Order: sequence, then C-alpha cells, then structure tokens
Amino acid sequence: MVPDRSSLSSSGTSTVDHHRAGRIAIIGATGVVGREAISILESKGLSRSRILALASERSVGMTIPYASDLLAIESADACDFVGVSVALFCASSDVAQNLAPRAIAAGAAVIDNSSAFRLHPDVPLIVPEINRAALAHGSTLVANPNCSAVILTVAVEPLRQAFGLRAIDIATYQAVSGAGQGGIDDLLNQVKAAALGRTQAPSFFREPCLFNVFSHDSAIEPETGLNVEERKIIDESRKIWSLPTLRITPTCVRVPVLRAHTQAITVELDQPATERDVRDAFAAARGVRVVDDRVASNFPTPLKAAHGDDVLVGRIRPDPGTSPDASGRSRRWCLLACGDQLRKGAASNAIQIADCLGLLTPANAQATSIAIA
Amino acid sequence: MVPDRSSLSSSGTSTVDHHRAGRIAIIGATGVVGREAISILESKGLSRSRILALASERSVGMTIPYASDLLAIESADACDFVGVSVALFCASSDVAQNLAPRAIAAGAAVIDNSSAFRLHPDVPLIVPEINRAALAHGSTLVANPNCSAVILTVAVEPLRQAFGLRAIDIATYQAVSGAGQGGIDDLLNQVKAAALGRTQAPSFFREPCLFNVFSHDSAIEPETGLNVEERKIIDESRKIWSLPTLRITPTCVRVPVLRAHTQAITVELDQPATERDVRDAFAAARGVRVVDDRVASNFPTPLKAAHGDDVLVGRIRPDPGTSPDASGRSRRWCLLACGDQLRKGAASNAIQIADCLGLLTPANAQATSIAIA
Repeated sequence: MVPDRSSLSSSGTSTVDHHRAGRIAIIGATGVVGREAISILESKGLSRSRILALASERSVGMTIPYASDLLAIESADACDFVGVSVALFCASSDVAQNLAPRAIAAGAAVIDNSSAFRLHPDVPLIVPEINRAALAHGSTLVANPNCSAVILTVAVEPLRQAFGLRAIDIATYQAVSGAGQGGIDDLLNQVKAAALGRTQAPSFFREPCLFNVFSHDSAIEPETGLNVEERKIIDESRKIWSLPTLRITPTCVRVPVLRAHTQAITVELDQPATERDVRDAFAAARGVRVVDDRVASNFPTPLKAAHGDDVLVGRIRPDPGTSPDASGRSRRWCLLACGDQLRKGAASNAIQIADCLGLLTPANAQATSIAIA
Repeated sequence: MVPDRSSLSSSGTSTVDHHRAGRIAIIGATGVVGREAISILESKGLSRSRILALASERSVGMTIPYASDLLAIESADACDFVGVSVALFCASSDVAQNLAPRAIAAGAAVIDNSSAFRLHPDVPLIVPEINRAALAHGSTLVANPNCSAVILTVAVEPLRQAFGLRAIDIATYQAVSGAGQGGIDDLLNQVKAAALGRTQAPSFFREPCLFNVFSHDSAIEPETGLNVEERKIIDESRKIWSLPTLRITPTCVRVPVLRAHTQAITVELDQPATERDVRDAFAAARGVRVVDDRVASNFPTPLKAAHGDDVLVGRIRPDPGTSPDASGRSRRWCLLACGDQLRKGAASNAIQIADCLGLLTPANAQATSIAIA
C-alpha cells in the first residue's frame, strides 16, 4: 500500500520545506546499505547531530562510529520522525510499508530502498542521471531502484540518449553483499575454512559461495522461470526509462565477490552507430567512467568499482555476429559494466535523490532549484 | 602448419589399425588437462603399461600416481612414438605443431587439445555427441575444441537438432583452472592471504582472482575488441555445427571458481517451441543433464558440474522479453549451463574421440565400427 499522500495535503510540501535543514533518519542503520549511507553522509561533512540512526529493537544500544564520535542506534518503531527532513529507508519492504506513512505524516520526505513502492504509478523511481525530471518538487515518497537496474540503466543511458534502444540482453555477476551481511559472512567463513583445508557449509545461501557461482538467490516465479531479481531489472528499467515495452532479457547470477556487481550487456540500438559515436556518447555521460584499454587489458572489475560512485564501462565493441553497414555503423553493441551496488546501486543514489530535493543542505542554499533544473 | 598426411600414405590407416591396442601417449602429462586425462584413463582400467606420460625436459623424473603404482614422466622431445596408438596432446599449440608430425609419422593418431589445427579445413573438430560423423575412419589428426565451445555446443545441441538455430548470446563465468595451474595457484594463494587478513597480489593473472571477476585473460584483437576466447567460441562452434554464418555474441569473463565453466545462454531458434518441446529435447539428449527445480531453487553450479562429464542445464525459460505465439511457442530461450572444462571441455572429450576411433580397446573388440556407427 502506498501511503495516502492526499491525506497529507495540509502538511505536504510546506512541511518538507520547513524541515529542509532538518535531521536525516537512516532506517536500517545497522544493515550493509544503512552503514554505507551513514558513511557517505559522514564523508559529506554532515554534523553528527543531523543523523538519526534507526534500526529494529534488537539493535538499540549499539553504536556506529561517525566523525570521531559515535552514533547511538535508536528504535525505528518508537521514532516519531519529528524534525526529520528526509527518511532514508534502507530496510525491508515490510519496514517501509509500516513506517513510511508515519514519517511522511510527520513531514519527512521518504526515499525508500526497498521494492515496496517502486512500481506504484504515483511514486517516482529515480536515477538522477536519467530521470530526475520525474521528481516532483517536494516529493514526499521517492523509490530508489534495485541495484542491478541502477547499474544497467546508468551504463546504457548514454546510448539510449544518443541512439535510442530496441533491446537489451544482460547477464549479471552479483556480489554477495547484495543479499546483506549474511552473504558476506557466508563467503568469508568459507574463505577461512578453505585456508585450513576445510569446507564450510553455507549458513545463509542455499549454495556455497566460495569457488562457486549460482543462479540469483531470489525466488523463482513458477510459471515463467524468472527470478525476482530478473523481474525487477525488467520492470524497473522500463519504468526509469519510460519504455514500457522495451525487450530486456536478463540472467542474474551470484559470484563470490564481496561488493560491486558486474554486467555483460548487449544492446540493440534504434539508430546504428560507429564506434567513435558510441565512445563519444560515453565520454560525455554523467555517472559513467570508461575503463577500456585493449592494449593493457584494463577493463572494469568489481574491485575497481568498489567504494566508488561511478559505473565503470569497458569492453565496448560491436556485436561480432552482425556486420556493420556501409558507413561502418552497427546496431548491436556489447559492454562490460561494474558498479558498487551498495553505493550507486543503493545508498549513493538515495542520497543523490535527497540532494536533488534540496534536503541535505540548509534551506537558504537554494539547492533544490539548482539540483532539479 | 598441418602435418602433411599425404606423405604418410604408406603408414596411414593400416598402421593405426596395427597399433589399435598400443600405448596411449599423454603429451603435457603434468599440466592440469594432462593429469585429468591420465586420471580418466586410470578410472577406465587401462593398465599402467599402456600409458606413456610425456612432458618437457624439466619434468623428466617426476612421477604421477597411477593405479596404486607410479608413472614416470618421460621426455616428449625425445619420444619416437613407436608403438603408440594415440597421442593425446594436452599442451600448447607450439608443442603440437612441433611434435604431432612425428607422432603421426610413427603411426599414432593425434588428438590435439590445443588450438593449433582446429580451424584447418582438413582437420575434424569433434564433439562426439554432435559431429562424430565427421571423424574419418582411421583419422590421424583430430582437433579437440576449446572448452567453452564444447560446453556451449553440447548444451545447445538438443535445441539445434530439434528446432534449428538462428543466433546465440552467451556470457561466461570461467574457472581459473582454464588458464592452467598458475591460475589455480593465484586463487588459492589469495584465499590463504585473505584468511589472515592480508591481500596477495596476483602472480599469474593481471587482476586479482579472489573477490573479483575480470574480462577473460586472453589477448584482445585491437580492431574488433574481441578476446581470443570469444573468437574461439564463435569460430569453433560454427565449425562443429557446420553453421558458418551463425550469429554468436559472446562475452567471456573469469570468476574465482577452481573448476567448471558456467554459461548464461540465450538462443534464438529457427522454429518456435513450447516449454514442453524444449524440455523433451533436453531429456532425450546425450551428454546433458537437466538440473532445473524451480521450487527447490536447484540449478546448475560449477561445484555440481565439477569432476563430471555431463553438461548441466537449467533455468530453462522462454525469453521474458518476447511473447509466445498463439500456440504458446517461443523462438527465444534462456538457459544456464555448467560443465567441467578440464573433463568434458578437454580431457574427457579427447578420450571420447579416441574411443570413437577404437583406439583405447583391443583390435578384436570391434569398437571402431560400433563407435562410429
């Protein structure tokens, strides 16, 4: 259920404006995305007093280091969100469904990392490099897309803008941290055991992580055979791009990587392009960094993408299975892309959205009008 | 250069027949594929006296366990191949180019795992499940395909036979052992360091293996951007299937897996098919085992495929980006396949070829005529 924003009309935009320099609540502050969000806010120089670190009851009393000081974890369930300008939900869909209405009623803008509201027609699903224009001024509820959808759409956006899109084939190589701390623990425990010549059975995933890859751990739709991650890539990319019938053919796989997702992508363009055209499009793009040295074999890897906000793109080449036209232009292009799914795929993108809404900076800084221009 | 078989006419087929129950030489016996070949011959019960384990001078004097006994490594360069019925080359292209002519001149059939002769029009490139008919009776030189090409063609062959092929998109998740013992050592050394909280720089690959994936380590063609592994998949699969213009769009990536390659495959069929049609085709196929339980989330993984000869196929589903026709038939299908690239992708396939040629069993067993039928 989407919180009924019409019922909030008396406390809507003006309340958000009132709280523009208010506190920033992180719901799910002890999870991998919540910790990343707090770390990004710390690096942006926000004072400790503006950060409200919320989690479930069992984490209350824990602390998180912040700017040479400590943040005490408080109860999300007990929070009244008064004085909060933006609530970054880094928790499950259930938590978002339960607590987002209360945060909105208290005047906060909610930016939700869960899938709870992403496909609701009234909720903007935002990747700022692509569709920040879909952010209504004073939006009270914005959805942050699935990490794989963010990385895919950022990597492909320069080609969509320049040449249009007909279809995408994508195979993913997804880090275990996408599943949370349990995925990280599984892999690290298996590494420790292997170093001693032992085998450690998985305690989080169904399959061993170390020395293995496996079909993405999300549920499978019995009738289509698609898993939920693949479904999200299709549905959310279509919504972000406003291309509701775009053919997207995904296969999602977990690999023993701690952080950053990799994607082997083939795109079919509306308008064929030369390699120079394609490279020019990437060179001019925001949020993308080309790493593509054929001589030195330097291409994107998750280790190079980890802890950064850029999506790395390389192995840019025309599909060898199709011939260029007489002008040397090809319609199908292959890429390898890597992005840190905890940052650009989650926390950084959410904080970028808050920044676009002018919710991180003091009200008199006029950040909103600049950011949304 | 392909050894000039016309010059061998006086010692050709009849010599091979003479040596049918002769010795089996493994050239490159200390490498990962050579060791695997020896292990398979051991499990088939071949007596130690029939195995000739050859390697470079620096390995002479080493021994390899075999059937409660030891095989002594002998010099490949010094070998005259007399009494050898089949020489399994599990070494580099250079070694094959240098020594295969001598082995053939001495009356041996050569089965070469390197890429030296694979694309020569006079040399059969064989995956027995697919094109054993291309084996001429008494073939003196047969090429064993690239491991990724074997796994791909075995996985897709049931669909090609039943419905025909228009195109293939494939992204690989390739084990480090495909690059030899150096790749295994790199990964294991990095595991040991990580367990102690340290980082071990790569000494074999350009990129770290552990917690990472990277574009396949083979050379890149500067003008096309394709790497050599991708080129092999295209050229060799086309030759194996006698489909010289089939569109194949590959992206090859290394993952931190010790053995068995995984492939995310999308095929476009000539004739659309229902899911029942597709599953029936796989159920009847040789060399393929379907692992595809949507309820239990049991799908192919490299750990399940390792040390086996079957290519595992699962995640069988119609492309969600295209709609089925009125009869529920789809033209595009997605799969996940895993195969042990040291066995079916190399050693087992080579030994299968030798078996098809009747070179492993005594002359009076009439294996040749049965196997090639």
